[in-house]
Amino acid sequence: MVKKWVYLFTEGDASMRSLLGGKGAGVAEMTKAGLPVPPGLTITTEASIAYYAADRMFPEGLWDQVQAGLKDVEARAGKEFGDPTNPLLVSVRSGARDSMPGMMDTVLNLGLNAETLKGVIAATGNDRFAYDSFRRFIQMFSKIVLDIPSEKFELALQAAKDKHGAKYDTDLTAANMKSVAEDYLAIVEREAHRPFPSEPLDQLRLAIEAVFRSWNNDRAITYRNFHKIPHDLGTGVNVQTMAFGNMGGDSGTGVAFTRDPNTGERVLYGEYLINAQGEDVVAGIRTPRPIASMERDLPQVYRQFVKIADQMERHYKDMQDLEFTVERGRLYMLQTRSGKRAAAAAVRIAVEMAEEGLIDKTEAVRRVEPTHVESLLHRQIDPKAKVNVIARGLNASPGAAVGKAVFDSDRAEEMAKAGDRVVLVRQETNPDDVHGMIVSQGILTARGGATSHAAVVARQIGKPCVAGCEALRVDAANRCFTIDGVTVHEGDEIAINGTTGEVILGAVPLIEPTMSDDLKKLLGWADELRRLKVWANADYPRDAEKAREYGAQGIGLCRTEHMFFEEERLPIVRRMILAEKDEERERALAELLPIQRNDFRGIFKAMDGHPVVIRLIDPPLHEFLPHYDDLLVDVTEAKAKGHPDHEKEALLATVGSMREANPMLGLRGCRLGILYPGIVRMQVRAILEAAADVSAEGVVVHPEIMIPLISHVNELKVTRDELEGVARQVQAERGRKLEYKFGTMIEVPRAALTADEIAEHAEFFSFGTNDLTQTTFAISRDDAEGKFLLQYVERGILPVNPFQSIDRKGVGKLMRMAVESGRATRADLEVGICGEHGGDPSSVEFCHEIGLDYVSCSPFRVPVARLAAAQAAIAPAVRDR
Amino acid sequence: MVKKWVYLFTEGDASMRSLLGGKGAGVAEMTKAGLPVPPGLTITTEASIAYYAADRMFPEGLWDQVQAGLKDVEARAGKEFGDPTNPLLVSVRSGARDSMPGMMDTVLNLGLNAETLKGVIAATGNDRFAYDSFRRFIQMFSKIVLDIPSEKFELALQAAKDKHGAKYDTDLTAANMKSVAEDYLAIVEREAHRPFPSEPLDQLRLAIEAVFRSWNNDRAITYRNFHKIPHDLGTGVNVQTMAFGNMGGDSGTGVAFTRDPNTGERVLYGEYLINAQGEDVVAGIRTPRPIASMERDLPQVYRQFVKIADQMERHYKDMQDLEFTVERGRLYMLQTRSGKRAAAAAVRIAVEMAEEGLIDKTEAVRRVEPTHVESLLHRQIDPKAKVNVIARGLNASPGAAVGKAVFDSDRAEEMAKAGDRVVLVRQETNPDDVHGMIVSQGILTARGGATSHAAVVARQIGKPCVAGCEALRVDAANRCFTIDGVTVHEGDEIAINGTTGEVILGAVPLIEPTMSDDLKKLLGWADELRRLKVWANADYPRDAEKAREYGAQGIGLCRTEHMFFEEERLPIVRRMILAEKDEERERALAELLPIQRNDFRGIFKAMDGHPVVIRLIDPPLHEFLPHYDDLLVDVTEAKAKGHPDHEKEALLATVGSMREANPMLGLRGCRLGILYPGIVRMQVRAILEAAADVSAEGVVVHPEIMIPLISHVNELKVTRDELEGVARQVQAERGRKLEYKFGTMIEVPRAALTADEIAEHAEFFSFGTNDLTQTTFAISRDDAEGKFLLQYVERGILPVNPFQSIDRKGVGKLMRMAVESGRATRADLEVGICGEHGGDPSSVEFCHEIGLDYVSCSPFRVPVARLAAAQAAIAPAVRDR
Repeated sequence: MVKKWVYLFTEGDASMRSLLGGKGAGVAEMTKAGLPVPPGLTITTEASIAYYAADRMFPEGLWDQVQAGLKDVEARAGKEFGDPTNPLLVSVRSGARDSMPGMMDTVLNLGLNAETLKGVIAATGNDRFAYDSFRRFIQMFSKIVLDIPSEKFELALQAAKDKHGAKYDTDLTAANMKSVAEDYLAIVEREAHRPFPSEPLDQLRLAIEAVFRSWNNDRAITYRNFHKIPHDLGTGVNVQTMAFGNMGGDSGTGVAFTRDPNTGERVLYGEYLINAQGEDVVAGIRTPRPIASMERDLPQVYRQFVKIADQMERHYKDMQDLEFTVERGRLYMLQTRSGKRAAAAAVRIAVEMAEEGLIDKTEAVRRVEPTHVESLLHRQIDPKAKVNVIARGLNASPGAAVGKAVFDSDRAEEMAKAGDRVVLVRQETNPDDVHGMIVSQGILTARGGATSHAAVVARQIGKPCVAGCEALRVDAANRCFTIDGVTVHEGDEIAINGTTGEVILGAVPLIEPTMSDDLKKLLGWADELRRLKVWANADYPRDAEKAREYGAQGIGLCRTEHMFFEEERLPIVRRMILAEKDEERERALAELLPIQRNDFRGIFKAMDGHPVVIRLIDPPLHEFLPHYDDLLVDVTEAKAKGHPDHEKEALLATVGSMREANPMLGLRGCRLGILYPGIVRMQVRAILEAAADVSAEGVVVHPEIMIPLISHVNELKVTRDELEGVARQVQAERGRKLEYKFGTMIEVPRAALTADEIAEHAEFFSFGTNDLTQTTFAISRDDAEGKFLLQYVERGILPVNPFQSIDRKGVGKLMRMAVESGRATRADLEVGICGEHGGDPSSVEFCHEIGLDYVSCSPFRVPVARLAAAQAAIAPAVRDR
Repeated sequence: MVKKWVYLFTEGDASMRSLLGGKGAGVAEMTKAGLPVPPGLTITTEASIAYYAADRMFPEGLWDQVQAGLKDVEARAGKEFGDPTNPLLVSVRSGARDSMPGMMDTVLNLGLNAETLKGVIAATGNDRFAYDSFRRFIQMFSKIVLDIPSEKFELALQAAKDKHGAKYDTDLTAANMKSVAEDYLAIVEREAHRPFPSEPLDQLRLAIEAVFRSWNNDRAITYRNFHKIPHDLGTGVNVQTMAFGNMGGDSGTGVAFTRDPNTGERVLYGEYLINAQGEDVVAGIRTPRPIASMERDLPQVYRQFVKIADQMERHYKDMQDLEFTVERGRLYMLQTRSGKRAAAAAVRIAVEMAEEGLIDKTEAVRRVEPTHVESLLHRQIDPKAKVNVIARGLNASPGAAVGKAVFDSDRAEEMAKAGDRVVLVRQETNPDDVHGMIVSQGILTARGGATSHAAVVARQIGKPCVAGCEALRVDAANRCFTIDGVTVHEGDEIAINGTTGEVILGAVPLIEPTMSDDLKKLLGWADELRRLKVWANADYPRDAEKAREYGAQGIGLCRTEHMFFEEERLPIVRRMILAEKDEERERALAELLPIQRNDFRGIFKAMDGHPVVIRLIDPPLHEFLPHYDDLLVDVTEAKAKGHPDHEKEALLATVGSMREANPMLGLRGCRLGILYPGIVRMQVRAILEAAADVSAEGVVVHPEIMIPLISHVNELKVTRDELEGVARQVQAERGRKLEYKFGTMIEVPRAALTADEIAEHAEFFSFGTNDLTQTTFAISRDDAEGKFLLQYVERGILPVNPFQSIDRKGVGKLMRMAVESGRATRADLEVGICGEHGGDPSSVEFCHEIGLDYVSCSPFRVPVARLAAAQAAIAPAVRDR
């Protein structure tokens, strides 16, 4: 028996994707759902494989089945192939199992020739359109089937335009187009040494063969190699009746969404044009009308369309983006697909559909992109506003800010106190700037990457920040900056978009972030589904409160040193570092103790009952001192002018002796605590005294003390031994038994590789994936992100920026090893992540996959992580069905 | 039947270590070999376990067996326990299976009491010695058995000294000592509420129990925990006759080696003292005589000793270090063990013993420490010389150097041309100093670690170097330096010891390195045994020649950028880097091409037939530019003085824009080639043109082009694709097919983790363990080595400096993964190591173990690696026998 090579649209459905290709299965599904789809047939992918197997010969029965199918199509369309009065025209399109957009070939308007053209002119009353279609068909067919380069035709078209003084194609008249079509036919005859095939069946047969061949053109092979699509799947071929919306007042074309894609409101939303083709809508020659007015123009069609829209939404259980054409009062559905939507709409649609019973809650959770949630929680520039972008920097902390430019932090504070909104603009920020950053709407710097001081602090305090904007020339002395000749003075309004990195001249309207009831509902459903806990990174009580509000179940990273950077503390910290005698150092530490204790009290209270992971001091001590370069300039200047500054010279020498070639890999983290135990002893005392204080007030506290930058188990062992002594002492002094844990960051490859040993002395692990990525790749984020890393991602050398999403093959492999070998040593080891990846949806999925207990991210990303964690948990179930 | 708890020395042998403990088995083996060992018995380790099992009771039969054994000992010694005329005195010592030096207790002179004391006085004629022995015995016994703190006795001794106006113990007379002993007995009676046990058998029983108990004292438990020795092994107890060398002119004591431990010559070498105890030799009161003169003093004993020495050497098949005592003309052997020896002696002894047939060649190879070989290949300071060490720095490049201090490189060149030996002293060196370093004997710097410019270049060119000598104050302007008040001017002679880090005032005599015939022979034997190939790191033809001379089988690392640093090239390199237009850059590259080509020609010729691995440019480009700080000072100064230097300001801006926070993790390695392909294209062209040139001359070349710092396979892929194009081009131009390979360094954790992917595009791997260690530990060697890393090793936080020996648990794990997964992808993948670990014996052993093809190290360490590789290959065989 001969194989079935051809399926009518009425014979297939969505499940037959492998056999019919994606497009063929799609139109069959629409047809099956009762939609008025222009009739057609699909040649199976197997036929294309058989064609290649037979060395480019149609398999037995294929052409017969195509012709038989075509009869059926003619009957349904009420038109005949080659009929000079009412000709059937068809499109011939490829359609493989996997979408390969633009990789293979399409022929439209097949069936046109000198005879059938007359029928089209009669039907549309538009001879210019008919001739234009014909010359396009010739060009497309010739290129694909006859291998004649398009340029040949384009030159002829250009010659015609020159001759008639026409600037655009549209300036050519019907008569001009007719003569272009004639020129085209002559070109074909000259190039192909044969006349253009005028017999529609010949055209069809040749076009089918060309589509078969297009499966193996260079572009398609390259595409499949890149996307790892097998080469032996073959392609389907779809032959479909063309529908024309430009056949008069009872014809038209349009697009519509089943719900408002901006707000999510359940109303039909879209536009249409009477007597027009799809291209006319795109060309913008006429202004389309809102879809609702079709009720007046074509009432019957409109009612039918409304019914179909509703039916389609229920069929696909999602908001649909519909394309349709009306040909002489007859509605044809050309395409239906899930519609793109704005963030707010995504949330509202998912929640309402679940409440309507169209989908379940799990599906609702799956439907919303985590990035949608993120964008809803930052101020945004009103997308309708006209903005004047004058430069671009690094999108260091998301959200938008508008305010008066100000060039130093003290001035920022003054102006903010006076009620001004300000944006702090600095060459780069340093610890002295924190008070200015806190009072500003946003921060803009000329230097520094995503881990620069400005970026880290801005993310932490939830301020928008554009960093490393290299076009920016800051002249702080004269209180102004210039970008490409534009000068902005103190008090001039500017805006920044930390989500995109844009710097904008003048004020722009902002949209306030909202945690809508819909979003709250959706996140509640997400919470029911997820296994991963979501904690937050918070250094201050105010951050902890924000984190709780957004649903954080703990603090995964409290960076004690950020507290040191605050204005009134820095001088004490500097005294501590520069102390020459032990007693001086002890005195400074004693001054810091009550301050730190107070910070912890606040955080513990905010997190009542929830765990708080506190990291002991991490950055190199020289970060707390003035910059070497600044001192060097001051000292050199003073000397050159004959007034040497001996005090500064001494400071320069000290700072110089503490300089490091690679501070990222230098004296920091646990190494500090091992060399200078006084600092970490003070910190642990502050933590446990605070815990004792608040638990005396009835607050439930679970402090977890985290020792950073462990690379060898012995570092952890000696540090912990030292600090357990302090813990015993504080408990004895307060006469109160405290619950606390000791653990470590896993942020150095060696820690991951020896996690079995390290887990012997750690009750918890927290992956510091920022540093782990830096060391695993040997890439300094500060140096790379604005420079070669950008190129790497653009050129596809790295598939994704590994500082945004966890690199699963390298960093992820280390993480997986650490989780497995750590838990082999200590089954109840608590494992989480506190790097910035904790708020990245793809990374959250990976953390779920390798069995972490929680992810911790900045408070503003907690909702994102809640949703991503739920999606990770439901993903396998979705895949399974 | 009662168990056998006691073995006479005549009953055991070396194989019974577990049962008798190390010491018991040792004396038994000597006894068995027919040596005159003072007779004694050993109580088994099992007895001590039984003692604990029975809750501190002697097991049945133990005490009877001890007493029976003692009878045998008395008979052999010709003395009786408690005999007032000729008393047997014994030592009671612990001895576990594993040596635990100093952890457990020993009692000497047991058997002394008021009665037997008289016999000792009569026998030695030395009543002061007798009373002194008695009071020492009381103190030792009381401390160990009766738990009376030593301080009690020391206070009494001090009181006696005060009373008699004695400064030292030795100032006390016999009568004084007698009264001290009486005081001691009174102390015991007061503290223990019982008299001191005078009955020798009671003393013995109590001492045995005390030794049993000492197995579980705190020190011993801690020691076992640390060294992972099981706690249930128990200890043996050795009861041995005391022998006295101070019993007159026919008595004496001495030590001797069976061969000269300095030269290895086969002569008896040692010294002795007539009528003396071992302590007298140590105290240095009398000058011992050479062992040969004993032939005159005690001819019979001497002949016996010579025979025994020879017998012992043949018995243990190694040069022996013998301790003996002569008591009234009777020779007692107290100890024999393998003797420590100097490097030259080790080599000579091993080779000669193999040639004598005493050991086989494999054993000879096993006998010599690789570090011995290393020390033989550098100039050494004559160990007999008196030296005035004025400071210590980092031992950055081994060997010693003497010369006139000189403070800049041009001056160094002038003085060297004039025939002076010079030592270059700099704050730190930079590329401009290379010509000065080459003409100097050695280099001394005040700043920089083991990977500073000075250190790296010095090791490379084989010059001794002491770096980072922080006490050094260099005043280059005034051509002098000071250390702790000592000032050294240009032309003053100094010496440095790069092996120890010492800086020495004045000239010292040096010993020239020798590759002796013995050493050549030994290394030849090693070559027959090893599987690992040994290659060398060499950047210049002269290094390649040295490497070949020392036996290198290839070049594992040729660093192309070191060539850039040479004086006449640096200006071109700077022009290339600072070029603003592509054509300027191309012009500079075109100038560099013939220079690089010429370097490679020289190396290829030197390595005729052997592979040469050439690494493409690796360091960040700013390393080739002037220092930012220097420029900043110049610019600031000029500005402050009112004469701004605009050219320098521009340069400062450029250098500033290229600065990196962590250059180690920045724009270097393959990243440079990806961003600036011109440089690596030029390098590959130079390599292959040179290969074509010399192969036209009949030289066989195997260039292997190494792409550094790969962390993602795509970096390798794009780089290789680019460079294969150049390779095709050169071959086409020259009309010659060249054999070459492309490969990569594995020096980033991610490369090791994804070696399976990387091996798809690499024909070889070379482990860059310096960088791999830095990134795996997150430790910058430059910043850490002189600072916290030192403390880490001293405090035992790190068992060993991971930059000296490969950290097997972390870095080694990555290496093993990379070898296995790389070879899984490409079975014939060539894998080697080119980090400095390639010359470290422990690391060489590890490289053998994980199956590398070769190790590559500096030319001067090639012989070390040859020996270490052989030892790694024979190690399992040795363990098996």
